Amino acid sequence: MGEFTHFNNLGEAVMVDVSDKKETVREATARGKITMSPECLQKIMEGQMGKGDVLGVARIAGIMGAKKTSELIPLCHVLNLTKVEMEFYPDLKENAVFALCRVRTVGKTGVEMEALTGVSTALLTIYDMCKAVDKSMLIENICLIKKTGGKSGTFIRTEESGEQ
Amino acid sequence: MGEFTHFNNLGEAVMVDVSDKKETVREATARGKITMSPECLQKIMEGQMGKGDVLGVARIAGIMGAKKTSELIPLCHVLNLTKVEMEFYPDLKENAVFALCRVRTVGKTGVEMEALTGVSTALLTIYDMCKAVDKSMLIENICLIKKTGGKSGTFIRTEESGEQ
Amino acid sequence: MGEFTHFNNLGEAVMVDVSDKKETVREATARGKITMSPECLQKIMEGQMGKGDVLGVARIAGIMGAKKTSELIPLCHVLNLTKVEMEFYPDLKENAVFALCRVRTVGKTGVEMEALTGVSTALLTIYDMCKAVDKSMLIENICLIKKTGGKSGTFIRTEESGEQ
Amino acid sequence: MGEFTHFNNLGEAVMVDVSDKKETVREATARGKITMSPECLQKIMEGQMGKGDVLGVARIAGIMGAKKTSELIPLCHVLNLTKVEMEFYPDLKENAVFALCRVRTVGKTGVEMEALTGVSTALLTIYDMCKAVDKSMLIENICLIKKTGGKSGTFIRTEESGEQ
Amino acid sequence: MGEFTHFNNLGEAVMVDVSDKKETVREATARGKITMSPECLQKIMEGQMGKGDVLGVARIAGIMGAKKTSELIPLCHVLNLTKVEMEFYPDLKENAVFALCRVRTVGKTGVEMEALTGVSTALLTIYDMCKAVDKSMLIENICLIKKTGGKSGTFIRTEESGEQ
Amino acid sequence: MGEFTHFNNLGEAVMVDVSDKKETVREATARGKITMSPECLQKIMEGQMGKGDVLGVARIAGIMGAKKTSELIPLCHVLNLTKVEMEFYPDLKENAVFALCRVRTVGKTGVEMEALTGVSTALLTIYDMCKAVDKSMLIENICLIKKTGGKSGTFIRTEESGEQ
Repeated sequence: MGEFTHFNNLGEAVMVDVSDKKETVREATARGKITMSPECLQKIMEGQMGKGDVLGVARIAGIMGAKKTSELIPLCHVLNLTKVEMEFYPDLKENAVFALCRVRTVGKTGVEMEALTGVSTALLTIYDMCKAVDKSMLIENICLIKKTGGKSGTFIRTEESGEQ
Repeated sequence: MGEFTHFNNLGEAVMVDVSDKKETVREATARGKITMSPECLQKIMEGQMGKGDVLGVARIAGIMGAKKTSELIPLCHVLNLTKVEMEFYPDLKENAVFALCRVRTVGKTGVEMEALTGVSTALLTIYDMCKAVDKSMLIENICLIKKTGGKSGTFIRTEESGEQ
Repeated sequence: MGEFTHFNNLGEAVMVDVSDKKETVREATARGKITMSPECLQKIMEGQMGKGDVLGVARIAGIMGAKKTSELIPLCHVLNLTKVEMEFYPDLKENAVFALCRVRTVGKTGVEMEALTGVSTALLTIYDMCKAVDKSMLIENICLIKKTGGKSGTFIRTEESGEQ
Repeated sequence: MGEFTHFNNLGEAVMVDVSDKKETVREATARGKITMSPECLQKIMEGQMGKGDVLGVARIAGIMGAKKTSELIPLCHVLNLTKVEMEFYPDLKENAVFALCRVRTVGKTGVEMEALTGVSTALLTIYDMCKAVDKSMLIENICLIKKTGGKSGTFIRTEESGEQ
Repeated sequence: MGEFTHFNNLGEAVMVDVSDKKETVREATARGKITMSPECLQKIMEGQMGKGDVLGVARIAGIMGAKKTSELIPLCHVLNLTKVEMEFYPDLKENAVFALCRVRTVGKTGVEMEALTGVSTALLTIYDMCKAVDKSMLIENICLIKKTGGKSGTFIRTEESGEQ
Repeated sequence: MGEFTHFNNLGEAVMVDVSDKKETVREATARGKITMSPECLQKIMEGQMGKGDVLGVARIAGIMGAKKTSELIPLCHVLNLTKVEMEFYPDLKENAVFALCRVRTVGKTGVEMEALTGVSTALLTIYDMCKAVDKSMLIENICLIKKTGGKSGTFIRTEESGEQ
């Protein structure tokens, strides 16, 4: 098992030195969901048909949120993202909207945090836009599902690794 | 059931007019958790004892994140928060850290989004600081648990309202 | 005719003292347009029908831009906007999209700059989203069309006052 | 004629993938103007002589605005600008101040939006500093005049391409 | 002697609750200086005469820095400043530029941090603009010199209180 | 002796062109201190033992402040920092806390301003957290102590170069 890398040997927080790491293509995908009342989900899906595009706003918020990651997460490096993509999947059975964020960069560190921040910001935006209808919505299952590139190599979330 | 308030009657997104609402004390509390491997949780708890204070960093990130809410959530009003407080509860049984964020303001709209953004940012920061040890962490159960003040009055999350 | 208010008597820039001004409802409306090729305008209007909502993205950008005014304009006061609204009017005769931004606050200074910044940011966003199709677009006629509230009272742009 | 590149084939907004594009020197120049009353222009020009340097403040605002482009324009990539330069030309015949912004980077995408955002922010700042004297100022003719570098090559605005 | 107010009784950082404090006029003045080589100071003073206005740029940076205080200082409240003013005094005897920042607000907490942040940002900007000429500049004596308003009342720095 | 590089030959501020400079490893170290009453220093040191970690908060603020440098200092280039590290040394003899900030990047310009901004932000944060106990604290001796990389080569502050 590894060690926390964000502290020095005195236990002090540092932004770790990546000066010598190679610039390579790095990609990460994160997902999450927000569950809500059937009525609320219904309204979101109708909105797609011209009454107010909740997911369109959340998509922009997620993309802009991913770009703000290094301002939000104290020890994150600034990275020039080369791609950000948000997808949403309304699910009538689970009364939920699933969100997926894919991020790429060519840089010295990975973009896991950017993908996770994109998902979180998008889900919070859905909450904001729907809270007049349902205040009991629940944001759940935010996790990294895949990561490629960099020295630590590929990570793919499996049932075993993830469903603790 | 209410209607989405962030759209006008053409279905266009707006930042809603709160000019005529009263300035009152408004408070909101949100919670969430991050589950992880027992080893990772163990390291966080040792860190409290001098090897690197993950939760201390996450607390600052959560407070600063709450202040950034109106930059992240497109249609949120800018609010001058009068209090932000983050609490963390490591839980050895669930292999999780619970986070709680309490926000107050004296203003024209509620601070639900600020409390939820504080929780989300804190949990993402925990993820960032622990990801060298465990990439399968899961952020879960982010929700509003209480809200007071304003015209819509008090909301308290109950099993019935929330555990859908 | 008045004097520049953003300088002291030594000619040095200052953020002027509004401590003693009353908090009143203040509103401002600004407009502007972007002209483009007929093909480009055609694509924007088709986009409204499901192929990519340029104006939906520009609306969010305009609202968020209005909120960022005091970060962009050096001597602007921070104001807690109580309403921001963006409207777009595609015009086939002029091959243009007109943008309108209405902003309100309850505060000590006016929101002209916020309305103008909202319009500018929205038009720049339209440029960004369409520039693969037309690089010769022109942003024009950005101006204040109405302002109410505050000591200086109501301003309404007329042919006489404006079309210099 | 090209296609909008900021949408995927479902019409959803994306920050387009530039991971595989080459890092080359890219440059863009944008211009715009603000027209005003002769008295107001006179005051700006006197200000250059010690009574308050409107254009000096606008220059700083324009440079800082160009650096903020990716925060303002939702789908813009973050770029590390390697040069930003603002020029102003007061014009007594047109009762206007012309602004010019030149931006360079060594990167994977062009800097048209940065140059346009620099011009816009500078002109908005002039408006802000002069609005106590003239509320009818008009911001006009913001456009790209030249762009070099990158796969799409050189663009130079001509009467034909631009004066629609 | 008082106690640190930014921690709760568990020693955890909090943004303290000021919800119940009164909104009153609060003002703070901070100062600081930057010492440099005589040649460098000479260049700054010539710059005032048309060769490049170092202090004009630093003034804008200081004002904008004061507005950013709550983004920089983790536990600071967001305050809508109602006045920010920067003054500079070049001093040929001490080979230094003194900076003074006066800030006012009508709010629930004081603006000491805003005044100090304004001074610091201005002095850092002077350093940046002069560092090609002198890398040994020293930023010194940043302190609060006066504060009025609020429950804790007036503070005036005296030799006794300050020159430790 | 060099010339100011942040102005063109008309004396106008510019963000200088570094497009042709090589990307090399660049490092800078800055220091500063805050002096305070013995009681206040005592409380900071006790805080390290569980009553409220002033220096832990200041460390995070310093790291985040270094990342914000190009937003604060008008003519600074945006740089992707590859390392930021803050150290603090309480000194009972001088009744002071010394702060040190080390920054690295692989880029086209140096990181002196980032190191100095990190130190300043950390010291301001200490001031904020202790001001309920001592309002007479003094921030002093902020300077660059070492810089390597880039065309201008290595700079090391010596008594001679620095103690003017």
